[in-house]
Amino acid sequence: MAQRVGRYTIRLDNPPAVKGYASIVGKKEGDGPLARYFDKINDDTTFGEKTWEKAESRMQKDTLNLALRKAAITPETVDVIFAGDLLNQCISSSFGLREFDIPFAGLFGACSTMAESLIMASVFVEGGFANVAAAVTSSHFCSAERQYRLPLEYGGQRPQSSQWTVTGAGAVILSHDGEGPFMRELTVGKIVDLGIKDSNNMGAAMAPAAADTLQSYFSDTGSRPEDFDLILTGDLGQVGSDLLHTLLQKEGISLGKKQNDCGLLIYDREKQDVHSGASGCGCSASVLCSKIFGDMRAGRLQNILFMATGALLSPLSVQQGESIPSVAHLLHITARL
Amino acid sequence: MAQRVGRYTIRLDNPPAVKGYASIVGKKEGDGPLARYFDKINDDTTFGEKTWEKAESRMQKDTLNLALRKAAITPETVDVIFAGDLLNQCISSSFGLREFDIPFAGLFGACSTMAESLIMASVFVEGGFANVAAAVTSSHFCSAERQYRLPLEYGGQRPQSSQWTVTGAGAVILSHDGEGPFMRELTVGKIVDLGIKDSNNMGAAMAPAAADTLQSYFSDTGSRPEDFDLILTGDLGQVGSDLLHTLLQKEGISLGKKQNDCGLLIYDREKQDVHSGASGCGCSASVLCSKIFGDMRAGRLQNILFMATGALLSPLSVQQGESIPSVAHLLHITARL
Repeated sequence: MAQRVGRYTIRLDNPPAVKGYASIVGKKEGDGPLARYFDKINDDTTFGEKTWEKAESRMQKDTLNLALRKAAITPETVDVIFAGDLLNQCISSSFGLREFDIPFAGLFGACSTMAESLIMASVFVEGGFANVAAAVTSSHFCSAERQYRLPLEYGGQRPQSSQWTVTGAGAVILSHDGEGPFMRELTVGKIVDLGIKDSNNMGAAMAPAAADTLQSYFSDTGSRPEDFDLILTGDLGQVGSDLLHTLLQKEGISLGKKQNDCGLLIYDREKQDVHSGASGCGCSASVLCSKIFGDMRAGRLQNILFMATGALLSPLSVQQGESIPSVAHLLHITARL
Repeated sequence: MAQRVGRYTIRLDNPPAVKGYASIVGKKEGDGPLARYFDKINDDTTFGEKTWEKAESRMQKDTLNLALRKAAITPETVDVIFAGDLLNQCISSSFGLREFDIPFAGLFGACSTMAESLIMASVFVEGGFANVAAAVTSSHFCSAERQYRLPLEYGGQRPQSSQWTVTGAGAVILSHDGEGPFMRELTVGKIVDLGIKDSNNMGAAMAPAAADTLQSYFSDTGSRPEDFDLILTGDLGQVGSDLLHTLLQKEGISLGKKQNDCGLLIYDREKQDVHSGASGCGCSASVLCSKIFGDMRAGRLQNILFMATGALLSPLSVQQGESIPSVAHLLHITARL
């Protein structure tokens, strides 16, 4: 049974396990420091498709197929997929996953989607609502740029606070009979909006949501940053990570060297010119579903917090002068039961 | 505990109850046959805001506040909100609900959102993941038209198969201590895409998904249309409803007079010039959260299936020549335990 702990946290008495996971990324991600951890690096960022949006759908489809294969199960055994992405009406997910014939629950959490989908999949498996559940998400630099910012052909300049949208996808299969890691505790985040309006500074917009969710979790569970091997945020980048430390310091919480950010891990910021780091649903998804789960299975990491952050803006909300509401969802994940 | 029944259906042994619900609609909906059932009809479709998008957010916020008041609870007692809408990046929900300080899980299910959010809220409450959960959605004719079709100022003609997007919102509060109705069984739908490409004929695109989910439910549970007082679809309109009957007839299932559609109930099609009927997340939401729950509480309806359908297209997917994937999620709801 599940148990509510404090105001915001859910503890799973029978933690769902990762049965399979996969990540597929593009060329730039394959040139970065995590290259050897990804299942597949595609040098052709069109993934053989005619548009960037179809490319992203294709990547999501291939990633789920690969995760199923690694879990050694067929689509028919999956009871529900939770998926979403950054594109208008989440078309990467609905078009990418339409052929699987698996019940589909669409999510929108922007770059928090990997955490949100894992929370939903965990709840369904823990509560017996599903025997096997999948969590899938993706982003693609080229589809995101032309939707959120400018057509690539325009060659716009990017301010130093901006982040580079990852071309990548991650998929996780959860069930009770997987080898792990295990989903132990969940905190669904609140929307936090401190009035940041600069859509080229998502890190600053999302840091308050990240701080809020982490504080809720620590307060609910009585735990501290020192209790974990890693507090993995995604995707605050450098600007947002620095702000997260500052915000929590004011509340008497020191993250010290425990925190790292998916947006700082996936590229080599010295060589790859990504300014404040990486972002996109596919960033935390592909980092979690490669190095992180790999390190946990290999025993190099035992006990982590994974917290993906999302900026819930749209180009239209920016045009209408709105600030950027953000959200951060958290999972406590352990390598062993 | 939850129990899986057949391949696709979840039976809730401890069915969550409706503790409160509310609907707010616009002027045109207030001119229709359900006028006396809505909690509030706003003659000013701007809802006092400067843009249509802000108006929709405002409507969603007001509707949740009203549902909380009717449930006689404060926002602090709600453990999680599930919400989504039709706008790019679901901004009606994230901007409308950002001030509540309640954990927020964003969904994207297009016009199926009322069913999807109710399924998620039911799962969280039944499994003890939440004591109180909210399900919220909305649509607005003016924000949807300019995003999906044409600016209103253009005065475009609408083909007879088109449906009119409802300006309306619905919110439901679920918990174990509500007076009802009660959520008994849930079927998360699969994405179905039979190749329909006409975005002015959503009914035809969505009918196959509706047929698929209904068939799954009947087959899983061994039930038949005659077992229910009402099979309420939303929003197939006339074209989609007729197709649903035809598709199921081929499988030996006769819906007879049991089926009705939220898109056919909310407007007077003789007088209100809406062609094939109504659509939009707010259509099934406002019909369910007015006449339907009202009739159930009053004992006029005992035992219904509520199945909201969503067309998972975007203007961009249409421009790229894609067909329209659709989904339908179903809940079996009873007035009494």
